[in-house]
Amino acid sequence: MPTKKKAAPAVKSGPTVKTRKKEPVILVTNDDGVTAPGIQNLVEAVRGLGKVVVVAPDKPQSGMGHAITIGSPLRLSPVSVYEGIEAYQCTGTPVACVKLAVDKVLHRQPDICVSGINHGANHSINVIYSGTMSAAMEAAIESIPSIGFSLLDYSIEADFTAARAYARRITELVLAQKFDKHLLLNVNIPRLPLEEIRGMKVCRQAYAKYEEDFIERKDPHNRMYYWLTGEFQNFDKGKDTDVWALENGYVSVVPVQFDLTNYVLKSKLEKSWK
Amino acid sequence: MPTKKKAAPAVKSGPTVKTRKKEPVILVTNDDGVTAPGIQNLVEAVRGLGKVVVVAPDKPQSGMGHAITIGSPLRLSPVSVYEGIEAYQCTGTPVACVKLAVDKVLHRQPDICVSGINHGANHSINVIYSGTMSAAMEAAIESIPSIGFSLLDYSIEADFTAARAYARRITELVLAQKFDKHLLLNVNIPRLPLEEIRGMKVCRQAYAKYEEDFIERKDPHNRMYYWLTGEFQNFDKGKDTDVWALENGYVSVVPVQFDLTNYVLKSKLEKSWK
Repeated sequence: MPTKKKAAPAVKSGPTVKTRKKEPVILVTNDDGVTAPGIQNLVEAVRGLGKVVVVAPDKPQSGMGHAITIGSPLRLSPVSVYEGIEAYQCTGTPVACVKLAVDKVLHRQPDICVSGINHGANHSINVIYSGTMSAAMEAAIESIPSIGFSLLDYSIEADFTAARAYARRITELVLAQKFDKHLLLNVNIPRLPLEEIRGMKVCRQAYAKYEEDFIERKDPHNRMYYWLTGEFQNFDKGKDTDVWALENGYVSVVPVQFDLTNYVLKSKLEKSWK
Repeated sequence: MPTKKKAAPAVKSGPTVKTRKKEPVILVTNDDGVTAPGIQNLVEAVRGLGKVVVVAPDKPQSGMGHAITIGSPLRLSPVSVYEGIEAYQCTGTPVACVKLAVDKVLHRQPDICVSGINHGANHSINVIYSGTMSAAMEAAIESIPSIGFSLLDYSIEADFTAARAYARRITELVLAQKFDKHLLLNVNIPRLPLEEIRGMKVCRQAYAKYEEDFIERKDPHNRMYYWLTGEFQNFDKGKDTDVWALENGYVSVVPVQFDLTNYVLKSKLEKSWK
């Protein structure tokens, strides 16, 4: 049982490289469920970089945003999906998985949390709706450097070769450097063969949104219901955005923060409102 | 049926006050459900300021964050809760309510969206988890100026007198001024009698988080389950934060944005990562 697990041994700093931990603990999670090809590829991407522990939802949780599970109890059970790697499935949202992983599985802060690899884009405004990014953000709030990875391919049979290579490279970069403890990166990988990718590009979040399109249907009792769908619309022509980078063959890396204060508007309002 | 409703008449600018609409359309929503005392108080707060339309969840949706309803169909049905005011309940999340309201009820952008009054605080990090604020943020993404209101009192019998007064005043202020179309305010009202409130204070979001505390139980089959609870912890000693304002008897007003890019970190990474 996870609650009877002994706490992982304390991680000590190596004697020569000040900021590099000896064996970092790497928490892996996602929003597509513990058996999704995306998370399987992420586990393989980070295998060998430290002690890898997986805690992920037991079912797909896409579009859950930063939902937390407060109205129903949470279950946590070990799963045998990854050879030689401790893995658990959880009945809660991605955010609940991270909270439970820290408190009831690891009994300590991991050195890094990686989330994904999501089946589908989480660039621009998707960061707001994404369960993948919310899991990573929850970790960042908890002072755990975090990265969300997403591949621009919804297919269950997507080719994760390039995504896996970049996930490993970026995780290594973050582990090797001393960053702010709230580090949070939103990484998207274009749907391209590895050799056609032009490299990484550090970007800002593009201003984009979904144009809603509700599909109307009638049930057998003649009552209307709606399916929410939407078309992605990019309104941002900047060449420093994640959408631009991805359209031009780069892996986009957007540093993300959870202080949502609009400081420009704050200054304006302070002068006019009392 | 809402889908057969004629579109609301186009709103024309008044002849004298350039930025003031003749009769603004005010969309009211929340995350506690269409019959919660909080939304009833919000409807009364804005009554008379324009054409008020209510579209809110049919059940409590607290802690839903920016979750969207994509895995199940949405139902929308009229409810008679508010005298003389068109109101609908929706089976979806707060964010889905806003999308459906614009597309299938109003058939146009409202002039403002007000969300709440939430039963309980949404200051500081709560902005990330809050269904109340996510509904307001969804409207802001859709270019609808928006305000989320929350009262620091979880009780179903809370006294909304002060919250209602400030909700009306702040809604009037926003309607009277020309703001950015993405205006989004997170307003929290302390649990105090109106006459003891020292006024409004424009703030930044405090850095705070929840210290998790999972309550462990065993089901009748001896299997463990967990209830997620947590203790709010404020790490931010600034006097310009929402937590400080509320503790000192002010109504806190935090301007919020949905561009989550961390520009400071972006500049740093641009130099070191290629």
